[in-house]
Amino acid sequence: MTTKTSSIKINTSKNFEIIDITSKINELIDIEEGIVSIFSRHSTSAIVVNENEKGLLSDLEFMLNEIVTDKFSYEHDRIDNNARSHLKSFLLSSSETLPVKNAKLDLGTWQSVFFIELDGPRHSRTVTLTMVGE
Amino acid sequence: MTTKTSSIKINTSKNFEIIDITSKINELIDIEEGIVSIFSRHSTSAIVVNENEKGLLSDLEFMLNEIVTDKFSYEHDRIDNNARSHLKSFLLSSSETLPVKNAKLDLGTWQSVFFIELDGPRHSRTVTLTMVGE
Amino acid sequence: MTTKTSSIKINTSKNFEIIDITSKINELIDIEEGIVSIFSRHSTSAIVVNENEKGLLSDLEFMLNEIVTDKFSYEHDRIDNNARSHLKSFLLSSSETLPVKNAKLDLGTWQSVFFIELDGPRHSRTVTLTMVGE
Repeated sequence: MTTKTSSIKINTSKNFEIIDITSKINELIDIEEGIVSIFSRHSTSAIVVNENEKGLLSDLEFMLNEIVTDKFSYEHDRIDNNARSHLKSFLLSSSETLPVKNAKLDLGTWQSVFFIELDGPRHSRTVTLTMVGE
Repeated sequence: MTTKTSSIKINTSKNFEIIDITSKINELIDIEEGIVSIFSRHSTSAIVVNENEKGLLSDLEFMLNEIVTDKFSYEHDRIDNNARSHLKSFLLSSSETLPVKNAKLDLGTWQSVFFIELDGPRHSRTVTLTMVGE
Repeated sequence: MTTKTSSIKINTSKNFEIIDITSKINELIDIEEGIVSIFSRHSTSAIVVNENEKGLLSDLEFMLNEIVTDKFSYEHDRIDNNARSHLKSFLLSSSETLPVKNAKLDLGTWQSVFFIELDGPRHSRTVTLTMVGE
């Protein structure tokens, strides 16, 4: 049994952007079997698991904008004009802990892991990987 | 320290269905102390922890239908007519990582672990358990 | 490699209350490197990671009250008058599993870990910490 760490650097180019990081994670996995914590070090981003289909990812953006509506004025916008980005992050959450098998993420056929930029564009977003297993 | 894996197969009979998998997980736990990752291999389902009270579970279905409303047309529905199922899964998430103590889930009095079917009925839904501990 | 457990007791004084538990968790971490599962044993509470800015935390309360509106009557309220508290907990989730480095939570600059009371005031809310690493 061992614990290993690694990280992924991401540059985003849009305000809202969904980036499939499945293959990058698989390249960095350094245990055969166990779990990996995938954690974004930013409070205006998220880590999620779902299907990589272009229309669906567009629907996700639409839904988040409906739920965290721009009809209201938010208090955090007096400090930093990105309250809605933080609120979307609260709903999606900043991490996922997933199974590893044969040194790869053990996902279903239609699943990918995504980093979601909610307040871009940004340089050097960092996602931390912490593996525990053998 | 060790890592162990197991899985649960679930057949669902309704489009929306909530199944309490707490006792099945407890039967399969094979470590004394540590954590267990409970992961659904499907992007139109979810794993959640809350109270097993019939009215509450009905309220959850109602709330999800309010949040992910059928008033809009979704792009993913052109490919596969289940955009709302995926969007609900994004909000609830496909995994939970929980504490294990005395070879059982270490939950509070009013907590159960649920598999939520969001696009059923389906055969052979698979939930993966990955235990890390001793 | 080892697994260690600890817990935090919290007394809340309001119906909705957000408590930063980052420093308490750091005091209790007893591994150098690995992961820690932070789990609330209550189905009307949540564990989340985001920025500790007063206005933002007020926006979170506002948003949750918008999403889980009081315009409807909920079935669980016939049993126990706190359906909306449970429904908010479903959306935020009751746990986070996070990286540990140098015997501390390995968070980004603007991140804190919060316990969210959704049905207070309550005595002796318990958050379980389960560490796995070395």
